[in-house]
Amino acid sequence: MAFQSKHLLGLDGTPAEDIITILDTARSFREVLDRPIKRLPTLQGKTVVNLFYEASTRTRISFELAEKRLSADIVSFSASTSSVKKGETLIDTVRNIEAMKIDMVVVRHSSPGAPHLLARVLNANIINAGDGGHEHPTQALLDIFTIRQKLGKLKGVTVALVGDISHSRVAMSNIYGLKKMGARVLVCGPSTLIPREIEKLGVEIYYNVDEIIPQADVMNILRLQLERQRTQLFPSLREYHNYFGITRERLEIASRPILIMHPGPMNRGVEITSNVADSEHSVILEQVTNGVAVRMAILYLLAGGQREAN
Amino acid sequence: MAFQSKHLLGLDGTPAEDIITILDTARSFREVLDRPIKRLPTLQGKTVVNLFYEASTRTRISFELAEKRLSADIVSFSASTSSVKKGETLIDTVRNIEAMKIDMVVVRHSSPGAPHLLARVLNANIINAGDGGHEHPTQALLDIFTIRQKLGKLKGVTVALVGDISHSRVAMSNIYGLKKMGARVLVCGPSTLIPREIEKLGVEIYYNVDEIIPQADVMNILRLQLERQRTQLFPSLREYHNYFGITRERLEIASRPILIMHPGPMNRGVEITSNVADSEHSVILEQVTNGVAVRMAILYLLAGGQREAN
Amino acid sequence: MAFQSKHLLGLDGTPAEDIITILDTARSFREVLDRPIKRLPTLQGKTVVNLFYEASTRTRISFELAEKRLSADIVSFSASTSSVKKGETLIDTVRNIEAMKIDMVVVRHSSPGAPHLLARVLNANIINAGDGGHEHPTQALLDIFTIRQKLGKLKGVTVALVGDISHSRVAMSNIYGLKKMGARVLVCGPSTLIPREIEKLGVEIYYNVDEIIPQADVMNILRLQLERQRTQLFPSLREYHNYFGITRERLEIASRPILIMHPGPMNRGVEITSNVADSEHSVILEQVTNGVAVRMAILYLLAGGQREAN
Repeated sequence: MAFQSKHLLGLDGTPAEDIITILDTARSFREVLDRPIKRLPTLQGKTVVNLFYEASTRTRISFELAEKRLSADIVSFSASTSSVKKGETLIDTVRNIEAMKIDMVVVRHSSPGAPHLLARVLNANIINAGDGGHEHPTQALLDIFTIRQKLGKLKGVTVALVGDISHSRVAMSNIYGLKKMGARVLVCGPSTLIPREIEKLGVEIYYNVDEIIPQADVMNILRLQLERQRTQLFPSLREYHNYFGITRERLEIASRPILIMHPGPMNRGVEITSNVADSEHSVILEQVTNGVAVRMAILYLLAGGQREAN
Repeated sequence: MAFQSKHLLGLDGTPAEDIITILDTARSFREVLDRPIKRLPTLQGKTVVNLFYEASTRTRISFELAEKRLSADIVSFSASTSSVKKGETLIDTVRNIEAMKIDMVVVRHSSPGAPHLLARVLNANIINAGDGGHEHPTQALLDIFTIRQKLGKLKGVTVALVGDISHSRVAMSNIYGLKKMGARVLVCGPSTLIPREIEKLGVEIYYNVDEIIPQADVMNILRLQLERQRTQLFPSLREYHNYFGITRERLEIASRPILIMHPGPMNRGVEITSNVADSEHSVILEQVTNGVAVRMAILYLLAGGQREAN
Repeated sequence: MAFQSKHLLGLDGTPAEDIITILDTARSFREVLDRPIKRLPTLQGKTVVNLFYEASTRTRISFELAEKRLSADIVSFSASTSSVKKGETLIDTVRNIEAMKIDMVVVRHSSPGAPHLLARVLNANIINAGDGGHEHPTQALLDIFTIRQKLGKLKGVTVALVGDISHSRVAMSNIYGLKKMGARVLVCGPSTLIPREIEKLGVEIYYNVDEIIPQADVMNILRLQLERQRTQLFPSLREYHNYFGITRERLEIASRPILIMHPGPMNRGVEITSNVADSEHSVILEQVTNGVAVRMAILYLLAGGQREAN
């Protein structure tokens, strides 16, 4: 099936078939990553611009590595070293960069919808690397890829997203993507961190982790995004940990081994304890490896995908 | 004619023949930018260092893209992530970097004359990417390239520079370059933002935009560089806009279509309205595209230009 | 002799034979730097990550150039544009980056021992680019390389380290390396800036520069690292200069020409005067050039060194 999307703005708007194509394509790139020489000529002569208006370590490095391994020319920009304070609009900045004859833009921005705005006015392919509290589609795709890799399927799998659902673009993208793939999605966290309307997306809401542990095949433990919260929405980190922190003891009530995921960066001892994060059921580092493969697949498919992936 | 310049420090000191050679060479690189594969092996094995002591987005990215498309090895440095606060002199810093066996230095610095200082002590080729309020020669060259591209000539063309002439290195470089190419140059802005001595450079001073519109073939509308002004030199942005902002209504008194240029970043609604910036006579985005070609030409010529440009 | 080290964490723990192998290998890379095309395919397909948690100009650029000239894929990270404030541990950050399938990590960190910590948990080769006040082994290796290059030997050579010994990772690495190579090492500075226990490393302590000048073959004049000192450990810069600043006048009591070295960045007029720094016996810029060669050698040897160096 031909890949339909021109951009990757969010999983809400991405057809299920395109998600499957990305997952399938990422599988061959994942194999490339185990080779001694990981570089392919796929994007030779193409220029990718990474615009990180929000600080980022792992996502930016993951994209840059994906781009380098496809032999793209890369220009990166982070707000702290740029002239974004000069009063120019986002659209003018990016239109200008596009006029330098570039092919793809990876953008992280604190405003929800910023990548969608760019997609409306640019010819370049836009990839959303996180837009405010809205979506983070490549993170969700690597989560979903990892679940399929480990469990062999997505349909009927029960995935629990635990923690701060309200401020999590990772949660939103996971919900959109997992529902399209036929998974059952539970969300669990303090009531102040779960918006009621989220039920309309077909997820089940829980406020007690001990109720989801017996049901879950996968737990995706979200980072407490303290930097995104305007007011203190729960009493203390210690109380958060006591009620929602995933510990080895708590997992003992599970009926079967639960795949432990975390999008990182982890607050060890808050939302997850080290003996869970580093346990034999944790696939947290494999998520990171898969992230490079998933991003290579997205770059490849958006660029047209004409050449062979290997 | 052989290219004479070893550095590109400013258009004041660049011979007219070298300016013409840059413009001619940029024409072939401009064609390269329309190819699917934009990379040439011209600077393979050469190392270019980009030293941005002032924040920059478009100029830095434009240089980096020009360098990458000529296959140079690139190292970039922006003051915010560097150790410039350690008390070392500029000359020692750059001499040290030169000792690492590099070939060219692109430098932006807040001090007028910083690139000239470097040129006196280094063997590397120096390109001025903006030195305080002094010169920004690559910007002026891309402006001049765009005028020639659109109007087919420079001699006798009337170019109006509108706005804050006092604080604009873009204005200075344009004046030097355009006068050498035989253009007629008008400057127009509030009297507080135009130094009287500028007449000695052969330009005509106007304080009323409505007087220049009937005469101009080109209007290069300068950005209000609020960040460079020590004191408030005009009452308000609204008043600046009322008297000097270029609007569609104001342009109706033109005797013929005027080519609209802006070096960016634009303050929309201040020095230029959107219906002018985005109009059919605006070449603002084409300036940006041409900027990459002009910078490729400069890098190529300073490096010796031995190899074929395509 | 086969190279034994898997990491370069410090010269304290590096066998003398490996130091000699690095110095010998650097000699061939030093020749490569004088060629018009300085790029070798040695690390093609290998990925090197540069993690600079402390600001750096010369060391970062030197490493990046060394990596590029060996054709490695490079990802760089400086704390100011990253998300290190998100509360993740250093080990988690770097483990995550390693999971992206990278081969080598160059790390600068303000905490002594940070690279050693990483070496314990990662499979990648770790290179210490400076860890707090502990070690800066690549700087010391380039210093030692330069001494051997200029004097033809290391055994029996008298090297004086002058200045702030207490806060200097450069001093520590030089002491470890030089002693292993059979040099005689003198340290000289204000008593507040020399730890007494340093005698145990086999160095001789002096508090008067005029006593070391007649004995020294080499003076390595350390930078006053004002940014590392918690309290004012000497009365004033002027007094420091009067007692410990190396001036041309002071050097006149030398019995023979002394090789003048400085790791940079220099505080001209404080620890060294310009007429010494720029004198015919100064090899300060040659140290910088040699630094690229030494770093190429280290990258090459840690990567396995299977391929030919030229």
